Amino acid sequence: MELGMIGLGRMGANMAHRLTQAGHTVIGYTRQPQKAEVLVQEGAIARGVTSFVELIEALTPPRTVWLMLPAATVDATLHTLMPFLDADDIIIDGGNSHYIDDIRRADQLKVKGIEYIDCGTSGGIWGAERGYCLMIGGALAVIKYLDPIFAALAPGVSAAPRTPGRELIGGTAEQGYLHCGSHGAGHFVKMVHNGIEYGIMAAYAEGLNILHHANIGKQLHQVDAETAPLRNPEFYQYDFNLADIAEVWRRGSVISSWLLDLIAIALLKDPDLANFEGRVSDSGEGRWTLMAAIEEGVPTPVLSTALYTRFSSRGQSDFANKLISALRYEFGGHLER
Amino acid sequence: MELGMIGLGRMGANMAHRLTQAGHTVIGYTRQPQKAEVLVQEGAIARGVTSFVELIEALTPPRTVWLMLPAATVDATLHTLMPFLDADDIIIDGGNSHYIDDIRRADQLKVKGIEYIDCGTSGGIWGAERGYCLMIGGALAVIKYLDPIFAALAPGVSAAPRTPGRELIGGTAEQGYLHCGSHGAGHFVKMVHNGIEYGIMAAYAEGLNILHHANIGKQLHQVDAETAPLRNPEFYQYDFNLADIAEVWRRGSVISSWLLDLIAIALLKDPDLANFEGRVSDSGEGRWTLMAAIEEGVPTPVLSTALYTRFSSRGQSDFANKLISALRYEFGGHLER
Amino acid sequence: MELGMIGLGRMGANMAHRLTQAGHTVIGYTRQPQKAEVLVQEGAIARGVTSFVELIEALTPPRTVWLMLPAATVDATLHTLMPFLDADDIIIDGGNSHYIDDIRRADQLKVKGIEYIDCGTSGGIWGAERGYCLMIGGALAVIKYLDPIFAALAPGVSAAPRTPGRELIGGTAEQGYLHCGSHGAGHFVKMVHNGIEYGIMAAYAEGLNILHHANIGKQLHQVDAETAPLRNPEFYQYDFNLADIAEVWRRGSVISSWLLDLIAIALLKDPDLANFEGRVSDSGEGRWTLMAAIEEGVPTPVLSTALYTRFSSRGQSDFANKLISALRYEFGGHLER
Amino acid sequence: MELGMIGLGRMGANMAHRLTQAGHTVIGYTRQPQKAEVLVQEGAIARGVTSFVELIEALTPPRTVWLMLPAATVDATLHTLMPFLDADDIIIDGGNSHYIDDIRRADQLKVKGIEYIDCGTSGGIWGAERGYCLMIGGALAVIKYLDPIFAALAPGVSAAPRTPGRELIGGTAEQGYLHCGSHGAGHFVKMVHNGIEYGIMAAYAEGLNILHHANIGKQLHQVDAETAPLRNPEFYQYDFNLADIAEVWRRGSVISSWLLDLIAIALLKDPDLANFEGRVSDSGEGRWTLMAAIEEGVPTPVLSTALYTRFSSRGQSDFANKLISALRYEFGGHLER
Repeated sequence: MELGMIGLGRMGANMAHRLTQAGHTVIGYTRQPQKAEVLVQEGAIARGVTSFVELIEALTPPRTVWLMLPAATVDATLHTLMPFLDADDIIIDGGNSHYIDDIRRADQLKVKGIEYIDCGTSGGIWGAERGYCLMIGGALAVIKYLDPIFAALAPGVSAAPRTPGRELIGGTAEQGYLHCGSHGAGHFVKMVHNGIEYGIMAAYAEGLNILHHANIGKQLHQVDAETAPLRNPEFYQYDFNLADIAEVWRRGSVISSWLLDLIAIALLKDPDLANFEGRVSDSGEGRWTLMAAIEEGVPTPVLSTALYTRFSSRGQSDFANKLISALRYEFGGHLER
Repeated sequence: MELGMIGLGRMGANMAHRLTQAGHTVIGYTRQPQKAEVLVQEGAIARGVTSFVELIEALTPPRTVWLMLPAATVDATLHTLMPFLDADDIIIDGGNSHYIDDIRRADQLKVKGIEYIDCGTSGGIWGAERGYCLMIGGALAVIKYLDPIFAALAPGVSAAPRTPGRELIGGTAEQGYLHCGSHGAGHFVKMVHNGIEYGIMAAYAEGLNILHHANIGKQLHQVDAETAPLRNPEFYQYDFNLADIAEVWRRGSVISSWLLDLIAIALLKDPDLANFEGRVSDSGEGRWTLMAAIEEGVPTPVLSTALYTRFSSRGQSDFANKLISALRYEFGGHLER
Repeated sequence: MELGMIGLGRMGANMAHRLTQAGHTVIGYTRQPQKAEVLVQEGAIARGVTSFVELIEALTPPRTVWLMLPAATVDATLHTLMPFLDADDIIIDGGNSHYIDDIRRADQLKVKGIEYIDCGTSGGIWGAERGYCLMIGGALAVIKYLDPIFAALAPGVSAAPRTPGRELIGGTAEQGYLHCGSHGAGHFVKMVHNGIEYGIMAAYAEGLNILHHANIGKQLHQVDAETAPLRNPEFYQYDFNLADIAEVWRRGSVISSWLLDLIAIALLKDPDLANFEGRVSDSGEGRWTLMAAIEEGVPTPVLSTALYTRFSSRGQSDFANKLISALRYEFGGHLER
Repeated sequence: MELGMIGLGRMGANMAHRLTQAGHTVIGYTRQPQKAEVLVQEGAIARGVTSFVELIEALTPPRTVWLMLPAATVDATLHTLMPFLDADDIIIDGGNSHYIDDIRRADQLKVKGIEYIDCGTSGGIWGAERGYCLMIGGALAVIKYLDPIFAALAPGVSAAPRTPGRELIGGTAEQGYLHCGSHGAGHFVKMVHNGIEYGIMAAYAEGLNILHHANIGKQLHQVDAETAPLRNPEFYQYDFNLADIAEVWRRGSVISSWLLDLIAIALLKDPDLANFEGRVSDSGEGRWTLMAAIEEGVPTPVLSTALYTRFSSRGQSDFANKLISALRYEFGGHLER
């Protein structure tokens, strides 16, 4: 099939590669002509264009245009692009949009007869090789029509052992892509996917932090009224090799996972993680996951505290902490140390 | 009554004052003769002594000795003091000992016929004036014998409106002191009291931090793939006066409390809390509370996350945060910002 | 002053009483004529009306109308009421509206020249006697005009000891009412107030639950591979009297508060809390508080887990728990017990 | 090598199988002669014995005895077994003992010259086929001597793609077994492993619970002062197929993992999880993980709230919830619904 790709960053370029390799024709839009040239030479895209007019002309109607953009820029792009589109053209938002925006956009585009598909895309920089997990929302007929695109991007069934019983059911879920429901359903599922991701990452990080501090009994502690002494320093005398521990967990353990594979890589390269300061970003989905949970009345203490740790890592608890120190001073005369 | 006080720091000296004012005779032990002199002049103690021998000789058997010491030094003090004590002497540990230590010490002292009483003492530097809330563990007869001591330290019933129905029951609870149960019961209740205190302090701190950041919509935010834009900056345009808000909550609101009174004081003095860095200490009871809860299988998400915020404020999440940043780099090529 | 009160439930009727006692004239709207009659006889309102037409006619322009309604019915009421209102009339929403709704409503009413004031009201059924804590948002001039109303409802400065330094500042905060900022500011502050309230309530509840289970060492435990035995049953042998403990904490302790006063009352009446099932409602503000915190990027682990506990108490964790049991069965063959 | 296996339950029998298949000679101890017979016929063990005397006689000194028992029974077994053991015999505790017990036991056995090895074993009922992940603590020489045993139980390097750079390092970590450190180190690492496992399981469970409730907008909600209405029911209209969603995440996504594989199996078999009530057990390691974290001062909000959810699922929050309902009644007259 033929597809226009708007957004040729890390994700978009890799996806174009994978589509081209599968025999699809990708017209790539970028404002940087040199970048387009490089991607053409690499065989990632068939042709590069630098304006929406060119893009629209290059595609045979009904056109399929994939957006792979920061969530914050999608509306502006759609606003500019819309006048060039015709009825039956298809827009796929493959980025990390809020599903509520998908519902609104689908309604707006519907007026002009344009189809809108939301597609949550997981896989990061490994997707080029590993394939992308695609969570898709929108009209069934459109998604069926786009099946060859999704199939090319997804990892395929061989990427993991088959779930017993799946052979009786069929469907695309075990290929690595799924029509999750109506407009917004794809990004809703991707949103929750990322919320879970935050929780899992924090679970590993907390556990490894316990192992990291397991030699605390070797340190001297001051005796004063402000601090409780470590009751049993003899139980905290371990100097663990975290790279080895992450590695050993990768095989046979209950907690083996792809994220653990990456932890093993990261710790082998840099056991002290000295290249990082520990200011952890969050890109929206974790927040939206919690808001949905709260609206639904669903308890999410793990996903919440995982996100809050990221907020704190960026200094967002500072005022609260100062207040507690101030209070301790007021009632007990305690000074910070 | 006559009582020896070991430990004349902030807490011990204030308590001696209150006891003396109530007509008791306090012999104060301190290694600094000048300090003793000052306290005698202030009328806090009847006499100062600088050795345990002197202290023991100064008291008429059966002696009552109150320890007001950092938890970490109680065992060493008891070890040195014990040879001087006789059967029927009474030791009261009024500090923040772990209740498990109380159980052990009571058993050890019992062998020599010495009585051990654990007394959790709340009130901080305000206790001199406000009275101390006393949570007491040990043998009933001993605690009854010491009643005049406890009554003198406690605030008395007039310190708060009477709970309807209390007049039919009697007991000392509404005087502000209570025999909670056998050895360790006093410090167990005090331990949980402090665990609750951590939770309440964190609840106020988190809420005020939300108000503190309620003007975030006025700040400019960068558009990139790493950060979700604030969806509705127009809803976060408030510059709240936190000192006024803490003050207004003190009267008529559901969350009025003594800690809130102190928050109002702290914020009035220093609205930006510029004198504090936000490194919050914890002195043991919060930790022990969680351990008891975990042993009992009692869920304590609020008390736990309150304590963990203190750990984090002292940099104890750093390694975990670095690991998450490293992971984000591995799967998505994300750099810290 | 003269004021129309729409909503004469528990809160509205008590507030009418307090206003009338202070010399204001309250016209009460209710669809139940008998109820109005009772309130007139009790002296709570000067007159009862059963239609908006009557209400509008009974009030001298510019009119002041106070809404004391469930948040979910405010918009419908405003919709019906608006045609009867004139420029310069004032609407006060004293219920628990979302502050975002206030911003919208103020804009809508502005078009007709009607003033809108949001007033977060704390105090519950005790407010009649204790006074109400009022957190107010809207235009300064209007709030100044309404000052006698707010002053009559608020507790007044004598309700609590004065914060040192407040005497130099003045302002209404220490009277128990406060102009917090522009439209929505009152309900924003009230929202956070309730978020804090959830956290404080949970802190006490968790702590008392630890005390409640402190006799777990007296129970026999089965030895099997599924359950860890209690390592030290001898440390969990306490049968605590929770009513007495709540009482003793009311005087002199760091955690004394008005909520603790109520805990002491509740536990004295019913130590086993046998009249309650433990299905805890939440009425919106706790949820909105978290959403605001998440938008702002402010960590709120304590307030969040407090709310989630309420969700769980109503069975909202059930599916998640079943999934974990199913997983344990899959990897370990573990059966539920 | 030759090895005595005490404990032939689900785990022990499977491990015996795997050892025998690798050419080792396993003498199995069980009090049930028929069970031994079955295991001999299946080729899991070379011979079954029903007394410790028989076991000791059947093994050539220096003997190796592997314990695969509930943690609560290890001390009693060791107590009975010890008189039969000789210097240089080796005891391996492969169950889920607390690492603090390991340190004590190693000291006690050392006196008789007996070697003690702690071995955390992960893999559950799948280990027979998948191999076991082994985390080992104790003396280096002993662990080297036992290498063929550990190698036979572990999955081997081919069980997962190699971590880039590992080939330069060697070591057994990538075989799936690891000498983690001195006595207790193996169970310490296994303890934290299980703590992480609780966190990961809860992350998936919370996320899937959000998806499970994503159709809440289709339900009718009552309007009252106690409950906030769902602000945007139109955003919660999704009926998600959770079995398909778990399946699609298995390939290409960031959160693919072995636990997710099992979730896909469980949901395919029983989408409503109707066979489970949601009372989730915990078997000790999660608790010990938190206690170690608290002693070390390491924040673990995710691991903690994951464990607390299990406690709550078994009714351990009930009293706390009743207290909150009682409080709501006291201040607001709110009734439970």
